[in-house]
Amino acid sequence: MTATPPAFVPADPGFAARVRESFARQGAMKTLGAELIAVAPGYCAIALAPRPEVAQQHGYVHAGVVTAIVDSAGGYAGFTLFPVGASVLSVEFKINLLAPATGDRLVAEGFVVKPGRTLVITRGEVHAEKHGKRTLVAIMQQTLIVMHGKKEA
Amino acid sequence: MTATPPAFVPADPGFAARVRESFARQGAMKTLGAELIAVAPGYCAIALAPRPEVAQQHGYVHAGVVTAIVDSAGGYAGFTLFPVGASVLSVEFKINLLAPATGDRLVAEGFVVKPGRTLVITRGEVHAEKHGKRTLVAIMQQTLIVMHGKKEA
Amino acid sequence: MTATPPAFVPADPGFAARVRESFARQGAMKTLGAELIAVAPGYCAIALAPRPEVAQQHGYVHAGVVTAIVDSAGGYAGFTLFPVGASVLSVEFKINLLAPATGDRLVAEGFVVKPGRTLVITRGEVHAEKHGKRTLVAIMQQTLIVMHGKKEA
Amino acid sequence: MTATPPAFVPADPGFAARVRESFARQGAMKTLGAELIAVAPGYCAIALAPRPEVAQQHGYVHAGVVTAIVDSAGGYAGFTLFPVGASVLSVEFKINLLAPATGDRLVAEGFVVKPGRTLVITRGEVHAEKHGKRTLVAIMQQTLIVMHGKKEA
Repeated sequence: MTATPPAFVPADPGFAARVRESFARQGAMKTLGAELIAVAPGYCAIALAPRPEVAQQHGYVHAGVVTAIVDSAGGYAGFTLFPVGASVLSVEFKINLLAPATGDRLVAEGFVVKPGRTLVITRGEVHAEKHGKRTLVAIMQQTLIVMHGKKEA
Repeated sequence: MTATPPAFVPADPGFAARVRESFARQGAMKTLGAELIAVAPGYCAIALAPRPEVAQQHGYVHAGVVTAIVDSAGGYAGFTLFPVGASVLSVEFKINLLAPATGDRLVAEGFVVKPGRTLVITRGEVHAEKHGKRTLVAIMQQTLIVMHGKKEA
Repeated sequence: MTATPPAFVPADPGFAARVRESFARQGAMKTLGAELIAVAPGYCAIALAPRPEVAQQHGYVHAGVVTAIVDSAGGYAGFTLFPVGASVLSVEFKINLLAPATGDRLVAEGFVVKPGRTLVITRGEVHAEKHGKRTLVAIMQQTLIVMHGKKEA
Repeated sequence: MTATPPAFVPADPGFAARVRESFARQGAMKTLGAELIAVAPGYCAIALAPRPEVAQQHGYVHAGVVTAIVDSAGGYAGFTLFPVGASVLSVEFKINLLAPATGDRLVAEGFVVKPGRTLVITRGEVHAEKHGKRTLVAIMQQTLIVMHGKKEA
């Protein structure tokens, strides 16, 4: 949608390993059954299989669970661009839920819109995949803060 | 904060039972260890004990999990005012995370700000309780839609 | 960013004239000096020249004015898809401000993300143009409601 | 709504004069006809008279204009707590529009929810006054950034 999609250069060439290590420490992602499926500069994707243990009352994936994976995807999209020794926190986010979160797999993607020394702004999307078809189920805008001198681990 | 806090009259005197039945069907709430602790007209409270299974990488409760309980609290706050036979869905919400979600217990509260036939607007707050002290850790604004003629179960 | 960008078919072939008539009735747009520069199915663009009369204390265009043009752009993007006799209202929106709103011209664009009978979800972007260069200064997520049987005029 | 409403102590006893000087430099507030009516630690109120020059197509005050006054109210609520020599910028905000913005007068109020060295979180409310009755027409959540070493003027 943006005229010039930014090509990001990570400050730390080891960014992908740092994202994977941090993701592995998120007990919530393990409890929800979320999986890190892609990491690139300014980008992260996380997948989740819909099932009753993560559902709301109608059987769809709970909006909070959809939020959890897209919040993490946005946070790690930003984190790919952070210098070594810095840590990431979500300041705020806003989610619109567009369609029932159901299907074979949900894929949450985070995209850095605007990197910065203190704040990083991201966008997120969640698609539901079913029989090879993708449906957009949620969109997000998110603000992250860079915690300098605070390691992730 | 509002000059005249509204006193809501539920359309269905059995609203509390309907909320409890619907909450019991949310597999995600059980998986996260969330508990429904209070229901009143236009109000709902949900509690969660912080623990590694719902944490992010620094050991605090994951922002998505904080969101899950306050989204449900806001949704059920609205649902208390719905007529029999109507169901609730979150259209969107926005969360600001104010302090680390940690302590003995998190309590998420939803408050109806503006009821309506089609849309209901709520506010949410999440407090962390530790040694009898409460800290505000998140605030939410949320839009719900009333699905008439669609039962919750 | 979305895999399959939707191609929208307007319900009313006279959508562009309806948008222009409605825009012309927005006294706020005239007061702010905003101009409707493009209308297409699911899309609308509005331009504004930065000047002291619309500035905040540092001389940049006020965040509320940036919001006014992107709210209108999103609202009219949705309105292009409405049937004759329906009217549009903003339910809510969220804006992230990414860079100072300054330059030769601001261009706010609204894009329909998800049309619906009752609710329409849009995204918005505001770019600042200076010496032929575009800078993204704000992004928006917005929820609109379709007021059936309520004419715009 | 919060258990313990915070009592804020401003870092600069001359905070009210600083707010008034900064507000006077906002050309947009003058163009819209907005008036600063109250300043206190962590609080600010701004009023506006509805009239065709600030209206949308149905004759109500434009959502962007409602946003402009509540964004400024929230920003100055935060600014009351800033040290001398620091400046304020809105990072993001989210508005829910609850009722038509019309009547004799709109009053936008900003309240600091969480002060901080870098980020300040506020809530906002806009009431419409008519024949002595107040109606809540909008609520806001907002994130501000403190620009240290950057004077307002």
